Amino acid sequence: MSDRKPPKLPLGASSDAEKSRAAAWFEELRDTICAALEALEDTYTDSDMPGADLPAGRFERKAWQRPEGGGGVMSVMRGRVFEKVGVNISTVFGEFPADFAAKVPGAAEDPSFWASGISLVAHPTSPLVPTVHMNTRHIVTASQWFGGGADLTPMIASDVDRALFHAAFKEACDEHDPDYYPRYKEWCDEYFYLPHRDESRGVGGIFFDYLNTGDWQADFEFTQDVGRTFLNIYPEVVRHHMQEPWTPEQREQQLVKRGRYVEFNLLHDRGTQFGLKTGGNVEAILMSMPPAAKWP
Amino acid sequence: MSDRKPPKLPLGASSDAEKSRAAAWFEELRDTICAALEALEDTYTDSDMPGADLPAGRFERKAWQRPEGGGGVMSVMRGRVFEKVGVNISTVFGEFPADFAAKVPGAAEDPSFWASGISLVAHPTSPLVPTVHMNTRHIVTASQWFGGGADLTPMIASDVDRALFHAAFKEACDEHDPDYYPRYKEWCDEYFYLPHRDESRGVGGIFFDYLNTGDWQADFEFTQDVGRTFLNIYPEVVRHHMQEPWTPEQREQQLVKRGRYVEFNLLHDRGTQFGLKTGGNVEAILMSMPPAAKWP
Repeated sequence: MSDRKPPKLPLGASSDAEKSRAAAWFEELRDTICAALEALEDTYTDSDMPGADLPAGRFERKAWQRPEGGGGVMSVMRGRVFEKVGVNISTVFGEFPADFAAKVPGAAEDPSFWASGISLVAHPTSPLVPTVHMNTRHIVTASQWFGGGADLTPMIASDVDRALFHAAFKEACDEHDPDYYPRYKEWCDEYFYLPHRDESRGVGGIFFDYLNTGDWQADFEFTQDVGRTFLNIYPEVVRHHMQEPWTPEQREQQLVKRGRYVEFNLLHDRGTQFGLKTGGNVEAILMSMPPAAKWP
Repeated sequence: MSDRKPPKLPLGASSDAEKSRAAAWFEELRDTICAALEALEDTYTDSDMPGADLPAGRFERKAWQRPEGGGGVMSVMRGRVFEKVGVNISTVFGEFPADFAAKVPGAAEDPSFWASGISLVAHPTSPLVPTVHMNTRHIVTASQWFGGGADLTPMIASDVDRALFHAAFKEACDEHDPDYYPRYKEWCDEYFYLPHRDESRGVGGIFFDYLNTGDWQADFEFTQDVGRTFLNIYPEVVRHHMQEPWTPEQREQQLVKRGRYVEFNLLHDRGTQFGLKTGGNVEAILMSMPPAAKWP
């Protein structure tokens, strides 16, 4: 899911035990993230901002099946801190279409694949609380790899949020490999970019793909740490701003910025385009769309 | 701008006089359409619907230059009947990129082109007034042709609007060739379709392209009649509904339907994708985006 050419990866699929561990982790991470975001809904206290009079939001889950094999569970919360936040987990398997398989490591000879992952997009009500995206996944063909990342999109620029978010992911990366953070930060900046506007989608974060060092356990642990880091840092960023009053002008700025988010997802995001063009679950794929956006 | 394969067209470029006539017509059509839509703003009378207290809208014009040759003028009105309506005219020339030229009639050997046209998208404030799109154009390579059409997207289904719109275009088509309406109606239905949702964008209209019967004058007159038909029928449809009261639920339905419009334009519309990916004028290309949309 990047413009970079997929590398040749060592052959050797993950074992069934490894696949189970990865899928179970994504599910566990989903549960802890949902609990953490629901806790933010609970700790929101009185204010006179729109949405403040709503009850604390709760995630609603909806399972879906993929006719060709596997399925997933969407969790969506429409609350007072989060105007809309979606967390999708899925474990799917089958065969890639021939033209696609040719471009996927380990799938040129045998198009069979197994893929499991979690993806999240949060659209907070307050324009002062940044939008965020996080995704981690494990893909298995005749080879296997991990991918994912997290990136922050403040609606109103905040150097503090940007610095906090990057510092957290730098620390997580550095514990695994000093090369990870600079590479994955750059990759993120390259990917979340709107060429037609010559604008970045947000302030970045990290983006990695085709991670296969030959040490499954180490790669899995790194992927887990990306999820844990998100779980630590994003609620902290939210707490810094969720009680702050905001103005109608800031809300307007947020809605326009969300329009850019829509443009990125529909024009450039390869996961979205691939999913929609190959008959994926539309509701799950478009869960990332903002609840409201403007092109004034 | 359709999935249909471009036909082989007779060679023979339009003369400079023909090009001037076409470009002058698109400009004249823009002027009469803008005047007609401003007149609707003027005739809107008191109501307690949102927007009713705004002054009658007026188009604002903004010229843009294309560094590679030519340019255009955007006209945008943000009024009380029309939340946002954009009318763009442009006359551009230069050379198609090689990979694109190969697919364009008459451009395989010589990538030079000249193109002039008008395009309009209207997003009315009231959910009871249908959204509309109209576009006509003349393209000249070593061959030449006309293309365009108009299609209606009611936010709330109305059999009357649909029937009126189709009857008007059938009548206009039938005066030129009895084959035009059935062919161009079907082409429109095929084109304005969201495969990922298995939904039509609206209720259709007509869509034609590569029109070159060998009689430039006849083809030009048909293209003019498509513009004139739009000018007659759309304001009539608007007048039927513009004073009707609407509910917040209908407004919500409109905003969600507009989200589909965004999806079509960014995911499927070839003009939009081509324009954005080849460095066209972003503001002019995205003038078609609705002022507000929802994905609840």
